[in-house]
Amino acid sequence: MKKLIILLFLILPAISWAQELKSPNENFNLKFSIEEGKPTYQLTLDRQLIVKPSSLGLELIDVEDLISGFEIVETKNSSYDNTWEPVWGESSKIRNHYNELLVSLKQSETNRLMNIRFRLFNDGLGFRYEFPQQDNFTYFVVKEEKTQFAMTGDHKAWWIAGDYDTQEYDYTTSKLSEIRGLMEKAVTPNVSQYAFSETGVQTALMMKSKDGVYINLHEAALVGYSAMHLELDDENMVFTSHLTPDAIGNKAYMQAPTQTPWRTVIASKNAGDILLSNITLNLNEPLAYEDVSWIKPVKYIGVWWEMITGKSSWAYADLPGVKLGETDYSKAEPNGRHGATTEHVKEYIDFAAEHGFDQVLVEGWNQGWEDWFDKSKDYVFDFLTPYPDFDVVELRNYAKSKGVRIMMHHETSGAIRNYERHMDKAYQFMIDNNYNAVKSGYVGDIIPRGEHHYGQWAVNHYLYAVKKAGEYGVMVNAHEAVRPTGLRRTYPNLLANESARGTEYEAFGGNNVDHTTILPFTRQIGGPMDYTPGIFETDISKLNPNNGSRVRTTIARQLALYVTMYSPLQMAADLPEHYNQHLDAFQFIKDVPVDWSESLVLEAEPGDFITYARKDKNSSNWFVGRTNDEENRTSNIKFDFLEKGKSYIATVYKDAENAHWEKNPKAYEIEKYSVNNKSDISIDCAPGGGYAISIMEVDKSDLKGLEKL
Amino acid sequence: MKKLIILLFLILPAISWAQELKSPNENFNLKFSIEEGKPTYQLTLDRQLIVKPSSLGLELIDVEDLISGFEIVETKNSSYDNTWEPVWGESSKIRNHYNELLVSLKQSETNRLMNIRFRLFNDGLGFRYEFPQQDNFTYFVVKEEKTQFAMTGDHKAWWIAGDYDTQEYDYTTSKLSEIRGLMEKAVTPNVSQYAFSETGVQTALMMKSKDGVYINLHEAALVGYSAMHLELDDENMVFTSHLTPDAIGNKAYMQAPTQTPWRTVIASKNAGDILLSNITLNLNEPLAYEDVSWIKPVKYIGVWWEMITGKSSWAYADLPGVKLGETDYSKAEPNGRHGATTEHVKEYIDFAAEHGFDQVLVEGWNQGWEDWFDKSKDYVFDFLTPYPDFDVVELRNYAKSKGVRIMMHHETSGAIRNYERHMDKAYQFMIDNNYNAVKSGYVGDIIPRGEHHYGQWAVNHYLYAVKKAGEYGVMVNAHEAVRPTGLRRTYPNLLANESARGTEYEAFGGNNVDHTTILPFTRQIGGPMDYTPGIFETDISKLNPNNGSRVRTTIARQLALYVTMYSPLQMAADLPEHYNQHLDAFQFIKDVPVDWSESLVLEAEPGDFITYARKDKNSSNWFVGRTNDEENRTSNIKFDFLEKGKSYIATVYKDAENAHWEKNPKAYEIEKYSVNNKSDISIDCAPGGGYAISIMEVDKSDLKGLEKL
Repeated sequence: MKKLIILLFLILPAISWAQELKSPNENFNLKFSIEEGKPTYQLTLDRQLIVKPSSLGLELIDVEDLISGFEIVETKNSSYDNTWEPVWGESSKIRNHYNELLVSLKQSETNRLMNIRFRLFNDGLGFRYEFPQQDNFTYFVVKEEKTQFAMTGDHKAWWIAGDYDTQEYDYTTSKLSEIRGLMEKAVTPNVSQYAFSETGVQTALMMKSKDGVYINLHEAALVGYSAMHLELDDENMVFTSHLTPDAIGNKAYMQAPTQTPWRTVIASKNAGDILLSNITLNLNEPLAYEDVSWIKPVKYIGVWWEMITGKSSWAYADLPGVKLGETDYSKAEPNGRHGATTEHVKEYIDFAAEHGFDQVLVEGWNQGWEDWFDKSKDYVFDFLTPYPDFDVVELRNYAKSKGVRIMMHHETSGAIRNYERHMDKAYQFMIDNNYNAVKSGYVGDIIPRGEHHYGQWAVNHYLYAVKKAGEYGVMVNAHEAVRPTGLRRTYPNLLANESARGTEYEAFGGNNVDHTTILPFTRQIGGPMDYTPGIFETDISKLNPNNGSRVRTTIARQLALYVTMYSPLQMAADLPEHYNQHLDAFQFIKDVPVDWSESLVLEAEPGDFITYARKDKNSSNWFVGRTNDEENRTSNIKFDFLEKGKSYIATVYKDAENAHWEKNPKAYEIEKYSVNNKSDISIDCAPGGGYAISIMEVDKSDLKGLEKL
Repeated sequence: MKKLIILLFLILPAISWAQELKSPNENFNLKFSIEEGKPTYQLTLDRQLIVKPSSLGLELIDVEDLISGFEIVETKNSSYDNTWEPVWGESSKIRNHYNELLVSLKQSETNRLMNIRFRLFNDGLGFRYEFPQQDNFTYFVVKEEKTQFAMTGDHKAWWIAGDYDTQEYDYTTSKLSEIRGLMEKAVTPNVSQYAFSETGVQTALMMKSKDGVYINLHEAALVGYSAMHLELDDENMVFTSHLTPDAIGNKAYMQAPTQTPWRTVIASKNAGDILLSNITLNLNEPLAYEDVSWIKPVKYIGVWWEMITGKSSWAYADLPGVKLGETDYSKAEPNGRHGATTEHVKEYIDFAAEHGFDQVLVEGWNQGWEDWFDKSKDYVFDFLTPYPDFDVVELRNYAKSKGVRIMMHHETSGAIRNYERHMDKAYQFMIDNNYNAVKSGYVGDIIPRGEHHYGQWAVNHYLYAVKKAGEYGVMVNAHEAVRPTGLRRTYPNLLANESARGTEYEAFGGNNVDHTTILPFTRQIGGPMDYTPGIFETDISKLNPNNGSRVRTTIARQLALYVTMYSPLQMAADLPEHYNQHLDAFQFIKDVPVDWSESLVLEAEPGDFITYARKDKNSSNWFVGRTNDEENRTSNIKFDFLEKGKSYIATVYKDAENAHWEKNPKAYEIEKYSVNNKSDISIDCAPGGGYAISIMEVDKSDLKGLEKL
């Protein structure tokens, strides 16, 4: 059989490519053709195939598919080069530079028109389907999108299971051919999950070819469509798009003129280029808001980790069930473990004020947490009514007096309709009580049942929530929502998402030690993650004797994550009492900014290590972070990114010699050095370790007594 | 095999009934027992079985069913007798008089508690399941409710197909045993439909036994549950409840303490008793509103029939698709057939003012009608933005100056979420522009797909809409929503529903000639129907040459429907120009009230004829209406309901001698008589005919020259 396939392959005629497109630097080359009626593309980087000839098209419900029978009507080439300034981000200026090929296609038999727009950047490709206004084709239902990404070999991949409802999985590192055998193990339990195939994986998918080319597949500008997964044909190493269905199996309801999200192929021989690619952002629409003065990055602490670990509870009482408006909490006996009490929140506000945090997240403040979870309960929260021991007005005034805001929390439990019904009042309540940011959550199966977290219906909701929040001047941090696809460019009040396995899982059994060396290559290609780093007490049993979990990190690495896990919204997730035990290390969390003018990748290999250097947006200070996998590794970096002629004090927070995520996580050392742009440093990183460096510009006179590197 | 079954039946032990309950007048007798662990009931009327021993219970998802293994913990008997006054209705006082049996059950193995509450009225039975607060049973998912109604024979039935999405079917009259064979024919096309079985039928189901007992099965107070259908075992003539599923097949998500809707069995040897039964209302909760001064019955005309017939259009332009906020109507070419123009609406306002109508319904006033239908379109309407040729402010002021209101129209196209998103603004827009009533519509499949019109999720929405409308002082007339179950008692701003095949189908091919002799026994058991009678021009081709439909009625019967089709919201559905051709007959529509102090059934046989007499709530006048099937029939009625000693002028609007719905529909005669409570009259009714009588109290001196009956 194998012989026959090879034979067939050999006798296939070579494709005569109709169109060609080069990236501005001419490294990338895209070719397009109609191959036996099917739109087909291939992509090379430095004359080396990245994507083999791959077909394009969509299957439709009830009408003829948009797969074959196409002819080219017209092609248009154009170029674009523009630099724009994000409201917040990893850099203060972003260059959007590409060459474009717009192919207008007609399906001869049906006279239907479909365009494919390719944009080739210096770091990769974006393309999408467009359906122009036309007389005989307006409404259609997508049965499946059939976009192929034909890989050139059995690449190494960092992947999580394709799933319609969750991305909260640990990454598996394997060859593509090994995915099928590892899938069952990869699908670990989650409160809402729907894995759909033995070879289906999620985007952003990170791969590395045998030749050392890093390839990343994802999508940009997911609006009015369902999220895309990738289904692997593991005999031929061809990925095909697999969209999230609705309750009756349809993938998307469309009305021309319209378009799909962009499909992206980011590629480089340098892993750092993948991390720094702005393709996802550049393929999104420009800013939708005129006034963005109300959008500000946030550093926060919160009444949260103590609930996650089981030390305290979201719920006020122990009741079998709550009916909002009927359950009389004034008659309920408090369970004595409620976290969000007025008094306790004040302690957090005091700590936030003392250490310069902007906000204090408070979860479990509102009625309904006794049965919020996994109950198919529609009216689970009203987002307005506090527990008896949470005094909204007193805390509003107290926080105000301390120059701190409380961060709102809207857990929806997946009851999307219920959230939308209360949304206006909930946002108005926030404004009335001095909240300007909300953490929203979508834990559990979507209601109505049959809809999925990543389907078109829910995707529509998440953006609706962000836009409506925008009307009220509210910033959003959405958990369990669909993974980001760069929409923050257009709607920068969407500060961050979860949409991956965050720090909370360190209290639910733990994350892989190399988890944070993969996330920036995968989940974060789409946008910032509210990873909630900063855990200093890694032995969870110290908080809750019944919880044997261990945070798989050293303290030094927890500091590094504020640099490596980019987000304009950063939490110091541990309890104030634990920070008070390590105020010297805590200083880095206080110092590190949440907005940057420049970002560099100094070292990177997915699954092994990442070292970022970032420059504060509001000063000339730099910050370096290094996250390390389970191996002992030495990091060698140069400070040549510093401004020539200037002097800096570098404070290095690093693993002590015998540090180890499991055996000795708290062993860190803090050293100060005088550095300039000719300095370099070599730092040993422990298993599960890393380091963080703050580099503050100083007058030379301030450097007295400091060691020069 | 038949022998064996008979044998088995004979050797079954007789049930030893544990509990017995009699109706206040002792005509009905309910027996309850646990039969081999299964809750079982039977019902007799005048010692004759109406419901044979029938089991009760529910199948649940993932946990043990609530079907068997029960024991009686406790029983409680009580009585209730109270008279209440509806805000509007068929009578001004309603007696709620019943004996109650509350059976508390425990499922021994699981220790779960379930109560069954029976209420026995003089006209029938209501019962429901209740799930009290208990420690080990709070949340559950109903797989199916298994409530049996075991009939005593192969009754004659007036039925429509069980369907999760529509009730817009013509009724089939057949024996129960014939349902299976007639089902395919009964399921006529509809824009949204989901018939689920060959023997499934809808409630209210009307039946008649060989012994002449009329039996009606329905439900009351459908809140937080899905609508019930009846699945027939046509070997044994046993109905079992069949609930409307959600997208994944579940029937209802429940949280104790809670209960199901009431299941009702109304029965009598007199068909009129079924029509006059108040069981459905009495089983609903009392009024939820403190102030009801804003709720008023409505008589209206509308820019509607001309679109239904195809004479004019809802849409302003002919566009392949609309995107609200993007489509620029000021640049679109009007199609020249738009009904809801400022000028045209003014003509309707003038007509309404001249003839004393309260309101003018205007459909097609808002942007989006070009593609409103069957497009799976989520953002189909915003309920706020008028077409360029509909001037909201000008019409508001014009209507005000004429003492008329415009009735709002909210077509949702089944996009429930989109409606809820716009609801607050839409109702506020109404208040700002002097609207106080809305006709809402749910044409097409529910979005998100997989949900059904009669499922728990949509049922929740309809009531949400009514309650939110109530907050704004808005009255609701909901079309394509779930059939009513007496909720108007609690929320009387729900004036009416469609939820059946209305007059519009007379322009879509026609309704059965006997349709209106069945609806009061079926659809209207649950509540008022916006049937939109009053069609004088029955030849639709006169309005639209391309429409060959014919309204299957005489003009006389159209008048009768204002009395026989009870509703506090009555439309005169035809065009003003047609009324102007028959102003003598139109006088009845002008005279007839929409609110009553007393209602009587003078003659009734489902499928054949119904004659009602009703007394105006605000005067001593009476109105009689008779609807007739396809036979020539003579109606003989006595005026003994009139007040003794008083004099009245009776104006009789009846079929002329040669009248016939098809051949001679406009042949009517109007006669005036002097009548008192000793008078009687005999009137011949044409095929598809009927008559209407207004009986106005007068001084004796006014009767000069009038014929005495």
